[in-house]
Amino acid sequence: MTSSRIWTAALVVIGDEILSGRTQDKNVAQLASWLNVQGIRLAEVRVVPDVEEKIVAAVNALRSANDYLFTTGGIGPTHDDITVDAIAAALGVGVIVHPEARAILERHYETRGGLTDARLRMARVPKGADLIPNRMSGAPGIRIGNLFILAGVPHIAAGMLDALTGALEGGRPLVSETVGAYVPESEVAETLAALEKATPGISIGSYPFFREGRIGANFVIRSEDPGLASAAAGTLGDRLRELGREPVAGGIQ
Amino acid sequence: MTSSRIWTAALVVIGDEILSGRTQDKNVAQLASWLNVQGIRLAEVRVVPDVEEKIVAAVNALRSANDYLFTTGGIGPTHDDITVDAIAAALGVGVIVHPEARAILERHYETRGGLTDARLRMARVPKGADLIPNRMSGAPGIRIGNLFILAGVPHIAAGMLDALTGALEGGRPLVSETVGAYVPESEVAETLAALEKATPGISIGSYPFFREGRIGANFVIRSEDPGLASAAAGTLGDRLRELGREPVAGGIQ
Repeated sequence: MTSSRIWTAALVVIGDEILSGRTQDKNVAQLASWLNVQGIRLAEVRVVPDVEEKIVAAVNALRSANDYLFTTGGIGPTHDDITVDAIAAALGVGVIVHPEARAILERHYETRGGLTDARLRMARVPKGADLIPNRMSGAPGIRIGNLFILAGVPHIAAGMLDALTGALEGGRPLVSETVGAYVPESEVAETLAALEKATPGISIGSYPFFREGRIGANFVIRSEDPGLASAAAGTLGDRLRELGREPVAGGIQ
Repeated sequence: MTSSRIWTAALVVIGDEILSGRTQDKNVAQLASWLNVQGIRLAEVRVVPDVEEKIVAAVNALRSANDYLFTTGGIGPTHDDITVDAIAAALGVGVIVHPEARAILERHYETRGGLTDARLRMARVPKGADLIPNRMSGAPGIRIGNLFILAGVPHIAAGMLDALTGALEGGRPLVSETVGAYVPESEVAETLAALEKATPGISIGSYPFFREGRIGANFVIRSEDPGLASAAAGTLGDRLRELGREPVAGGIQ
């Protein structure tokens, strides 16, 4: 088969709470899984603090190197929410109050104490931006060019991704087949390398684990071609059996 | 108080499994928490794929900009474990088999089938490197200059960090005090901004949550001065009460 063009995305996670260890990030895995289905590969992630120059540097480095750039975090109403200003600075555009975002927030806060100055901050967008619907809470996400500004709270970010499903051009989805075995990965290292080399269009990752005193590994075969991935998984299973190790289709959890 | 010099570290997470969404990273939060105790701040994280040029670029960008640079992942025995070669390339040094690492692996595998070529890969280090003890499994971590190469499996990385505890020069640990309340963060945005502005030496992060239909937020006050953080937390509690919102010391889980 001919391989299709590879579409890539990067993610900038904005937040002191991730870098301080207070909060366990969940947006990397969530975005990666969603991108796979869209036929887009997550090529790089940077986690930066709530500091404008750091956000600007990461955004500018990654937006030109990838088809798409996502950010999570820093779009709330408080003083530490500086994502919109930082991205506007990165793009060299001004910040405006988006009329539709303002209307959304007015409706949302109508029965919740009204649209205060702090809340109106969440209607601010880089000039030229469109909104990404947010069904979970009032404040929308923001799209400007190939840049997607999402909330940091994972379930709100998930809702925004849901609203974007199918809207981004991508290639063929990357599929994966996992085969697990109770085997030290060093024992199958040559087998894996040989199989990957012999099968253009696949890559194999080897992920060791330790469960209740037993050593094993899961082998993940990734490809844009489901048939190729499946065939390689079958071959790997045969090789493991030849080594006297029972393969577990789907991997060992 | 006078503020001490701020020591920073960066982390490069190496692994297709993180960027594919297969594996939820745990090393960022783990390293961040450990660094806090050493008086070192995690300033940036980059997640890159198992591709040498991407690892080299991230390592070279971050090692000069920070006091310390950590990497996790890619130091096992299989073909996708290319961290050592990539870091040697970044540093412009060769790769050698470290005699002590070889001896460790020989002992470790003596009763486990012997030291094969694949296993010997785990004794390879950039020339000039020292070892970081690994009590969990055979293969050691690697230190070269201000660069620390750790395992990707979180509990093995944790053991390596444990071995490094107290070995790195740092400043005063960053401490945090958390105050939670069932309040929309937009309602306290001005209060938070004013308190941060009025209290040099602290920063305040605001982290909204949704629990069983109720909106709230945790406010995290960070400082190198425990007394300052504690006093600011007290003041914030008073302000929340003035707004008719009951503060919860330690935050709402």
